[in-house]
Amino acid sequence: MEQGAPHEHDLRMDDGVDTDTMTVAAPEPARNSQELDEEDNTLRPSFLRRVTEALDAENQEAVYNLVEPLHPADIADLFELIGQEYRAPLARAINDLLGSDVLAELNDWVRDDLVDQLEPEEVADLAEQMETDDAVALIEDLDEEDQAAVLAEMEPEDRAAIESALSYPEESAGRLMSRDVIAVPEHLTVGDLIDYLRRDDDDLATEFWEVFIVDVKHRPVGTCMLSWLLRAPRSVPLADVMKRDQTLIPVTMDQEEVALRFQKYALISAAVVDDSGRLVGQITVDDVVHIIQEEASEDILRLSGAGDGDINEPIGLTVRTRLSWLVVNLGTAIIAASVVGLFQGAIARFALLAVLMPIVSGMGGNAGTQTLAVVVRAIATNQLTSSNTVRMILRELRIALANGLSLGVLIGVGTTLIFGNPHLGAVIGAAMVINNLVAGLAGILVPVSLDRLRVDPAVSSAVFVTMATDVMGFFSFLGLAVVTGLAA
Amino acid sequence: MEQGAPHEHDLRMDDGVDTDTMTVAAPEPARNSQELDEEDNTLRPSFLRRVTEALDAENQEAVYNLVEPLHPADIADLFELIGQEYRAPLARAINDLLGSDVLAELNDWVRDDLVDQLEPEEVADLAEQMETDDAVALIEDLDEEDQAAVLAEMEPEDRAAIESALSYPEESAGRLMSRDVIAVPEHLTVGDLIDYLRRDDDDLATEFWEVFIVDVKHRPVGTCMLSWLLRAPRSVPLADVMKRDQTLIPVTMDQEEVALRFQKYALISAAVVDDSGRLVGQITVDDVVHIIQEEASEDILRLSGAGDGDINEPIGLTVRTRLSWLVVNLGTAIIAASVVGLFQGAIARFALLAVLMPIVSGMGGNAGTQTLAVVVRAIATNQLTSSNTVRMILRELRIALANGLSLGVLIGVGTTLIFGNPHLGAVIGAAMVINNLVAGLAGILVPVSLDRLRVDPAVSSAVFVTMATDVMGFFSFLGLAVVTGLAA
Repeated sequence: MEQGAPHEHDLRMDDGVDTDTMTVAAPEPARNSQELDEEDNTLRPSFLRRVTEALDAENQEAVYNLVEPLHPADIADLFELIGQEYRAPLARAINDLLGSDVLAELNDWVRDDLVDQLEPEEVADLAEQMETDDAVALIEDLDEEDQAAVLAEMEPEDRAAIESALSYPEESAGRLMSRDVIAVPEHLTVGDLIDYLRRDDDDLATEFWEVFIVDVKHRPVGTCMLSWLLRAPRSVPLADVMKRDQTLIPVTMDQEEVALRFQKYALISAAVVDDSGRLVGQITVDDVVHIIQEEASEDILRLSGAGDGDINEPIGLTVRTRLSWLVVNLGTAIIAASVVGLFQGAIARFALLAVLMPIVSGMGGNAGTQTLAVVVRAIATNQLTSSNTVRMILRELRIALANGLSLGVLIGVGTTLIFGNPHLGAVIGAAMVINNLVAGLAGILVPVSLDRLRVDPAVSSAVFVTMATDVMGFFSFLGLAVVTGLAA
Repeated sequence: MEQGAPHEHDLRMDDGVDTDTMTVAAPEPARNSQELDEEDNTLRPSFLRRVTEALDAENQEAVYNLVEPLHPADIADLFELIGQEYRAPLARAINDLLGSDVLAELNDWVRDDLVDQLEPEEVADLAEQMETDDAVALIEDLDEEDQAAVLAEMEPEDRAAIESALSYPEESAGRLMSRDVIAVPEHLTVGDLIDYLRRDDDDLATEFWEVFIVDVKHRPVGTCMLSWLLRAPRSVPLADVMKRDQTLIPVTMDQEEVALRFQKYALISAAVVDDSGRLVGQITVDDVVHIIQEEASEDILRLSGAGDGDINEPIGLTVRTRLSWLVVNLGTAIIAASVVGLFQGAIARFALLAVLMPIVSGMGGNAGTQTLAVVVRAIATNQLTSSNTVRMILRELRIALANGLSLGVLIGVGTTLIFGNPHLGAVIGAAMVINNLVAGLAGILVPVSLDRLRVDPAVSSAVFVTMATDVMGFFSFLGLAVVTGLAA
């Protein structure tokens, strides 16, 4: 075997697809297709039905056998998809399958639900099997009393790691990082490092993507991809294969900022350093992927006033979150209505104004929402910075003018033709141009200003923009009608 | 050196933060802070000013010296942030700094702009330095004629790889994958593999995260993390360290689906297989991170009718995209207005109806948007599947009823008190309840139905939902007013 040098042919990928040697055997499915829909990889309704039927029949063995072939991520999905009343019985039926890897993948609300039903020592057992960052995610959502009870049940070493992580602000790099890091001094050779890694030491990390090279003060001086290590001869010093230029993440950095760095510099893992520059942990890209998804979803949901918008969150919380946003909007709707109230006399004389006014305000709202969505995402992804704000404001104004003129002409001519009233057509056309300009201007100025004031533009921009387009829509249309003597 | 066994102390991370040995030296900045804002890692306006001043002065050397210390990703940002008129002069001034790594990071529109100004052989040179997936991204956006010209200038091997990638559908795994893969047969030992990797072979990939184990037909049978390889003794067969359960990506899979698998199973890289199950490439997580970001942004922008909403896209295209959406909305606004038109007589008799009616329609619109945003994201992230649709519809209806009743009572009592008209209060309160139910129902049924019909719910849901809440808002309020004899 040792001499059986690998054949060139077997070892390497061909550069093009070699159709001559193609075989016709079908690929084996990556996962069991009985449980999973082939197209979108979600659990089949028929599978869920069998699980709930077995749960209804209190046939725990059948439940266990159904769930057993699933990947932990799919078991997590099962808990999320199944009705809430089934979650506790399911957890009891599959007992040992409900491991740390399932909990780590579980939606926060569903996990809290489950964890609430476990004893502190059970939670502690699960947390000890997890990586620090996952254990922190599990424990940070518990209330203080439960947290203390769980921590008290843990091994002192694990407890210290989690307590230390909890001492960092929520959503910071310190909460996200794992403390299992391979960090070695610069003077080693590749061979030294491999020998060190081969030692039979259970405390050493088994899953890592990079080795960090540190100085005597434990400050990172370089980083080494494992593939470089594997390709280098044993005698080469680490200093010759490592990359000195690396992105260091301060332990207090916000997770959204961390995600942007990972994306910008295409990182797989990065060293986390404390105030004194010492290496204290690492963040890996698999955790960052969740954050990018979450932060982008957050922007959609906040722009729409849906809070965190998680379909698994308790319904009472959802009602409260959405209602508070609706009440704020009720306030702005009342302000807009009071503008209409100023023109009650004109409307009584010429009711057609009331028919057409929602078109002007509504179209302004649509145009404002367009600009707002673009600007909020550009701010969130660092594409809109103080360097190009002025250029972007001018860009939005030009777009607003072009769209406003097009829509103004369209609605103006249409109104003139339908109602045979060119005066009315001119008024609604002009109001449309004005309100599109208001929409474009508000759509960029509101989020940019909120961002400067360090308020999340996704949360509160929409209220201001909608108020601006509603108020100005009604005011410009009804005001022009009165001023030009249309409803005299 | 060979005997200088690494000290335990130097080699491992402490598990907790060891505050006793903390030093006070400040951490070195990861990047040069003269150019980058420390807080959000974007280029400083003052730096951009110096670059544009040097460009205005046609001082190419000064430009080069300013840009030279930047990371390629920051050079890409510089091109995006600087005014369009500066991009070509900047490209000329920094010549060799504008490498494949800068182009790979560049926004599509800005890249097209630059590439249009290069000769085919220059583009071919750049593409040859890039990984296949980045080269494909560069070439796929060119028009057919330019594509052919660039491909003709490339080495046959590279050309074949790119042509093969271009033969897969846009946004499929085949476009995204890299063909540089380490694939070895199962019978090797860890030592064999390391010896193979250490060979002085320029064609062998240098940056990879996993080794794929294939059978004689080149079908993947397992995968091996590099850290397991490094920790295993040389004599161990690969079959004993590899993981047999792996996620295989079919070459035609849509990139959004690829991203969901990476996220669900926390993958760093995954094997891509063709129809016959042969390994044809791999996808790595750094490419997927961009897709997750893009797909989530796409949902926000499409929901808001802003198309792709890229701030770097040509302004004419932006105007056309947004205008076509606004025209569609104009249609629905006219339909809603014609509902108001049915009640002109009532409005002429009682103009207060026109003042209050936008409140009912607007609040319905807000509530509908909340539900819509939650549902669109839940569909996109596979959280809402056919297994839990009914449960989620009931959930949204309960939320709509709770919010509708709260808002109905609030506005009903308020209207009664302000206008001293309990009849008007009852009508607006009831209309508010009805319209909230319409909003909740439309907010979930419209996107779920579109998804079943394989239409992207983010693109067209908002039109239907807004139309429903506008029409029903006006109809329920004005209709109830007339039917109950309020405006008689």
